[in-house]
Amino acid sequence: MNLTFDKPRVAVIGLGLIGGSIAIGLRSLGCVVQGFDEDKKSLEAGLANGVIDGAATSIASLVASFKENDSLEKTNLLIIAVPVLAMEMVFKEISPVFNSKKIVITDVGSVKAEVVRALESTAGEMPTNFVLGHPIAGSERHGVHASNGALFQHHQVILTPGQNTQADCIAYVRAMWEQLGASVTEMDVAHHDDILAQTSHLPHLLAYALIDTLSKQGDSLEIFDYAAGGLRDFSRIAASDPVMWRDIFESNRKPLLNVLDRYLDELTELRGLIEAGESGLVFVLLERAKKARDHFSILLEKRSK
Amino acid sequence: MNLTFDKPRVAVIGLGLIGGSIAIGLRSLGCVVQGFDEDKKSLEAGLANGVIDGAATSIASLVASFKENDSLEKTNLLIIAVPVLAMEMVFKEISPVFNSKKIVITDVGSVKAEVVRALESTAGEMPTNFVLGHPIAGSERHGVHASNGALFQHHQVILTPGQNTQADCIAYVRAMWEQLGASVTEMDVAHHDDILAQTSHLPHLLAYALIDTLSKQGDSLEIFDYAAGGLRDFSRIAASDPVMWRDIFESNRKPLLNVLDRYLDELTELRGLIEAGESGLVFVLLERAKKARDHFSILLEKRSK
Repeated sequence: MNLTFDKPRVAVIGLGLIGGSIAIGLRSLGCVVQGFDEDKKSLEAGLANGVIDGAATSIASLVASFKENDSLEKTNLLIIAVPVLAMEMVFKEISPVFNSKKIVITDVGSVKAEVVRALESTAGEMPTNFVLGHPIAGSERHGVHASNGALFQHHQVILTPGQNTQADCIAYVRAMWEQLGASVTEMDVAHHDDILAQTSHLPHLLAYALIDTLSKQGDSLEIFDYAAGGLRDFSRIAASDPVMWRDIFESNRKPLLNVLDRYLDELTELRGLIEAGESGLVFVLLERAKKARDHFSILLEKRSK
Repeated sequence: MNLTFDKPRVAVIGLGLIGGSIAIGLRSLGCVVQGFDEDKKSLEAGLANGVIDGAATSIASLVASFKENDSLEKTNLLIIAVPVLAMEMVFKEISPVFNSKKIVITDVGSVKAEVVRALESTAGEMPTNFVLGHPIAGSERHGVHASNGALFQHHQVILTPGQNTQADCIAYVRAMWEQLGASVTEMDVAHHDDILAQTSHLPHLLAYALIDTLSKQGDSLEIFDYAAGGLRDFSRIAASDPVMWRDIFESNRKPLLNVLDRYLDELTELRGLIEAGESGLVFVLLERAKKARDHFSILLEKRSK
């Protein structure tokens, strides 16, 4: 097939922050967007607030309407935006459109190995029209009410296509993200999951653990009162959706534990230096971290110019 | 004495972010501000950029000019804004104005027990005209170039006066901070250091350790490239001044190690739950942290209205 991204008929399954923001963004590009969410309130709010054009009563009805139009020239785009461990159930319902010629499917899951596993478990092998994707544009805000069509502008999207993913489907999903204002890169599944364990999953884990540790103390309210001094940023991260993060921690366990163990080693070493009054060595570590951070910040600023 | 905060003659020792920002703020309130910094470049930049009205060649000359005016009606205000472990050296030089009747002294150190120790070591007991203070308004930006007269607006300042601190000196320093736009509270030294260990010192420690852990990997640049997903906030904290933070970690060692140990216990427990696939218990912890965070956020929002 030869696909051009030009106002496809779109269906979005899962109207959280990411699904809702894609829906709004694609509507503003002229697409007609149907939505489904198993939470009726989210679905109704999405319809009432103009996040979607129409609300489907089931995934099956969405799939059926796509199948009916499969003979038309118009391309159909199906976007799965549910928590990682809810994907497999959705895949079972959309399996009739796997390998379809006029339908491109993509997802936004944070752990790609788990999405691959669920797809292979459902379909036997990776559907040729399914392009694995992940927008790096999370936020502590979540739910359909936080949807924002500009969320992806100047953000990165990582695609992790497999060997049998059709090249024109990859190009199609890339075009979608670029029209939403994102920069798209490709890498393999394992590399993606390893990078994200470090840049996103571990920081979230550390933030949740910190807020939980501090809130167990008697002076919790007072502590949050003085949160300007560093805690504020951690606190914001720990406001993220617990279901989504439970799924991520579980499904990306191995890369996450790997970097967490390295972190625990470093933290234990730093603890020992402080206890021993080795402030010269503490300084070496702090300065090294600051230099690394500043070095990478400068490189990234240069690149973005 | 009876002191009213009304355009005092001001001297600021230490022109970093905090000292420089106080200087600019007080100048905009009509004060004439002399500055000193042992780094000549900072001092010259402070003078060239209008952070201070005049640059002193030494702390001794600042103190001498204050002593000369001690007979006048005008109150003199001396602000010490150097890293915590540099305080004792400064105290030795300003000791001629300890307990002076027309001079109020305050500091901005992050660890009050260490400032008390250094003062008592220098003066035998706490000078009656020295009001210990700490503005909770840090930033990853530092140095005189980052100075900003509005830095303290809507921020908290904690004063930790001692038993023999003169009440009118406390009121004077409180008035200064309020005129700079801050809210002032008082608490005892140990409580301050314990609260700050939790809200500021531990988060900074965790952030430095994270950046150092990740930057040791071969794919560092790539990691920072995808820093939008949580790492970005940590990275910002780890850009803070390493000298300042080395001093803080060393001088607030006991409260810091106390909360760090609680944190390590919690992190180790969470690690075990993830490894064991106990995602139900992981969820309980994440939800509890999120609820605590949301609860305190709402309370604090209400209070600020």
